[in-house]
Amino acid sequence: MPINRRKFLQSSALAGAGVAITGTANATQADQIKANISKSKINIGVIGSGYRGQSHIDLLLGRKDCEVVAFADIDDRMIASTLKIFDKYGKPKPKVFKDGPYDYKNLLAEENIDAVIIATPWRWHSEQAIAAMKAGKYVGTEVCGAFSVDECWQLVNTQEETGTHLFFLENVCYRRDVMAIMNMVSQDMFGDLVHLEGGYQHDLRAVKFNDGTKAYGGGVEFGENAFHEAKWRTQHSVMRNGDLYPTHGLGPVAQMININRGNRFLYLTSMSSQAVGLHDYVVNHPKGGENHKNAKVKFKLGDVVTTMIKCANGESITLYHDTNLPRPYSIGFRVQGTKGIWMDVNKSLMIEGKTEAHKWTSADDWLKKYDHPYWKENEQKAVGAGHGGMDWFLIDEFVNHAKENKNPPIDVYDAAAWLSITPLSEESIAAGSSSVAMPDFTRGRWMDRK
Amino acid sequence: MPINRRKFLQSSALAGAGVAITGTANATQADQIKANISKSKINIGVIGSGYRGQSHIDLLLGRKDCEVVAFADIDDRMIASTLKIFDKYGKPKPKVFKDGPYDYKNLLAEENIDAVIIATPWRWHSEQAIAAMKAGKYVGTEVCGAFSVDECWQLVNTQEETGTHLFFLENVCYRRDVMAIMNMVSQDMFGDLVHLEGGYQHDLRAVKFNDGTKAYGGGVEFGENAFHEAKWRTQHSVMRNGDLYPTHGLGPVAQMININRGNRFLYLTSMSSQAVGLHDYVVNHPKGGENHKNAKVKFKLGDVVTTMIKCANGESITLYHDTNLPRPYSIGFRVQGTKGIWMDVNKSLMIEGKTEAHKWTSADDWLKKYDHPYWKENEQKAVGAGHGGMDWFLIDEFVNHAKENKNPPIDVYDAAAWLSITPLSEESIAAGSSSVAMPDFTRGRWMDRK
Repeated sequence: MPINRRKFLQSSALAGAGVAITGTANATQADQIKANISKSKINIGVIGSGYRGQSHIDLLLGRKDCEVVAFADIDDRMIASTLKIFDKYGKPKPKVFKDGPYDYKNLLAEENIDAVIIATPWRWHSEQAIAAMKAGKYVGTEVCGAFSVDECWQLVNTQEETGTHLFFLENVCYRRDVMAIMNMVSQDMFGDLVHLEGGYQHDLRAVKFNDGTKAYGGGVEFGENAFHEAKWRTQHSVMRNGDLYPTHGLGPVAQMININRGNRFLYLTSMSSQAVGLHDYVVNHPKGGENHKNAKVKFKLGDVVTTMIKCANGESITLYHDTNLPRPYSIGFRVQGTKGIWMDVNKSLMIEGKTEAHKWTSADDWLKKYDHPYWKENEQKAVGAGHGGMDWFLIDEFVNHAKENKNPPIDVYDAAAWLSITPLSEESIAAGSSSVAMPDFTRGRWMDRK
Repeated sequence: MPINRRKFLQSSALAGAGVAITGTANATQADQIKANISKSKINIGVIGSGYRGQSHIDLLLGRKDCEVVAFADIDDRMIASTLKIFDKYGKPKPKVFKDGPYDYKNLLAEENIDAVIIATPWRWHSEQAIAAMKAGKYVGTEVCGAFSVDECWQLVNTQEETGTHLFFLENVCYRRDVMAIMNMVSQDMFGDLVHLEGGYQHDLRAVKFNDGTKAYGGGVEFGENAFHEAKWRTQHSVMRNGDLYPTHGLGPVAQMININRGNRFLYLTSMSSQAVGLHDYVVNHPKGGENHKNAKVKFKLGDVVTTMIKCANGESITLYHDTNLPRPYSIGFRVQGTKGIWMDVNKSLMIEGKTEAHKWTSADDWLKKYDHPYWKENEQKAVGAGHGGMDWFLIDEFVNHAKENKNPPIDVYDAAAWLSITPLSEESIAAGSSSVAMPDFTRGRWMDRK
């Protein structure tokens, strides 16, 4: 029988109340108590079963240590395709919460659910994560960028108040080359890290526009007339200008320089290019043209948004957001230190004294040699999982941590710091690339957190 | 007989005085008058005959349309090796001005000199260029970064007052791939340009330190105990923090987006990483160590300095300065527009509808197809010239323009705008990556200049 987490949480909150006078000790104590609770199998609910949620459900249903007992969505087509995944695995039908956008609250009220994964459109992530933490569920939330710094604080405050964990589901932290480089960084192969880069450089024009039937491309519709992400995601390109999707590029490099664990982000400045790519796409598309109604839309999102972040230990980070132009997909990683450099765009590195000086050397052999044991051991299981297999590792980590109710490797402080890039970059761009201070969401605990 | 340029200049200045009331018409009128003066062969003086000056002299002496009649330097070893180049070409010995750092003024007083090339340490460039313009010489000045915005204005003001031309000798504008890409840009292959990148990413540790005998490496000395550039260049890494050498990366991309000719730089913001690379080099070098006196030096120059520049037509530029760490040489060009993208680090491009979508394609065939006619025609002559041949084109352009006393393709407004990056980036970094406005050195004429 699954332990009743909500009841447990209530008692732990009561226990915490006794030490409320010591402030932050509250959450820590709750952690210690809850860390003793561990299960061999957990029940999971998924909020948002679009294609991203369905990919997670597929991975979860393939496992023996969890069941997906419920999901919430409002789109009949998505609900139908989600239910087919249960059929594929011969699993019992889950409870479906489809009675409007707030029916997810009824999912959260289900006492037999231990953990939830949130994979809804961006504007719902924080609201649902906060509700889920308050409901005592172990929370995994999909990536995006925040809308305000206040929203990031709400995540942190709720986590600290409830003692419930939030796992920020940044899958690129589990990319095979990224984990190998992380391995090399931890073995001091690059020396002291000095400068890092990453970004979301992905031609999303066929994601932002479609024909209302296909998920990708085939037309220049967005909003009500569109299907899938174009229904809601494109509007952000109409209304906002900033790094709207910072975490794929930022997460891995933040981990490499121990952000929130001995280091922190200090300030940033962002710059936007002009916004011409999406208009061009609409005008030049066979189903678009100058007279299409979307040719009149003024897109505010600069085609390339560049952000520089300064860290407490001195490092600089350059971050790109580039989704409106024809280009190959590239996170554009660069990891550079006193002993060497790696870049992913040319799949090459140079390590002083180990590779030829002043020359790029293919990274292939090095990535194999320093392949992370986690990847090496599970390679076969990850075959076919999303995004080159990394999604298998993401979900494996999530389930393993949720089963033991352990503090996640990417926690609420990381979520808050990474998500905050978006509103801060909007602020910087709006003020002519002004330098903007970044909050310390750990309230000083970064100085001794491990 | 060479025309006496100084006398000519005096009369043209007098002619200009008659229209002084119309302000900027002054320079234009002087230009028109001087544009009629053209020669089939010119006499050149070189100020600064270190290895860079010697490379120029070598190229000049190989030509039939110019003579090097004088040079100025204060270093006996450099003077001796310079004279050997004259022997190699069987040329008559030039006049040598070596009587202290201001003897270059006597070189400028030589009436038979039509043009000068300045290749001294950075701090002398502007002072000498201004003196040379006042002396009525056609001026070519080597690249660096400025020390103040005022100094950039002085260059502009002097050029406008004297009507004498300044050719800013940025050789990377003549790199073969750069000229091919420029060719493609002008044929609209990349569409409207949106984002550009470049930088000076060059491990200069063996340039900044040597053993006092060799020009490159072999020790950790700089300043008085060192030879060649380490004598003076390294001190800039001790005392300054900014993009000290912006023009190799910036020049070509500025040309691609018509800076000062329908477009201009609006503002920039710079960020610096910590400064650890040079100290590490001193400490870990076999001739260095923790007890070497240079291990106590506090270098101020951040190992990686990143600058973002916003342009009037909307484009963003990212610029790197990265000279203190082990790494392969890379300008790191990126040219990105509504129809495609080129990067030089992976020697690849993508052009919508012409190369495979969402994939990098090797740029080789494209660079060959769009090889600039200037390169194609002169390839054989450039063999063996510095920096992969591009220095031959630089010097060829300089001599050809000087012979006809024509407005150079890289003129004083370009020089001022490109050089100003350095003091403005120092200002931005000193103020926590503040956004800094960039001057319009054309005083509004960028709006209709061609």
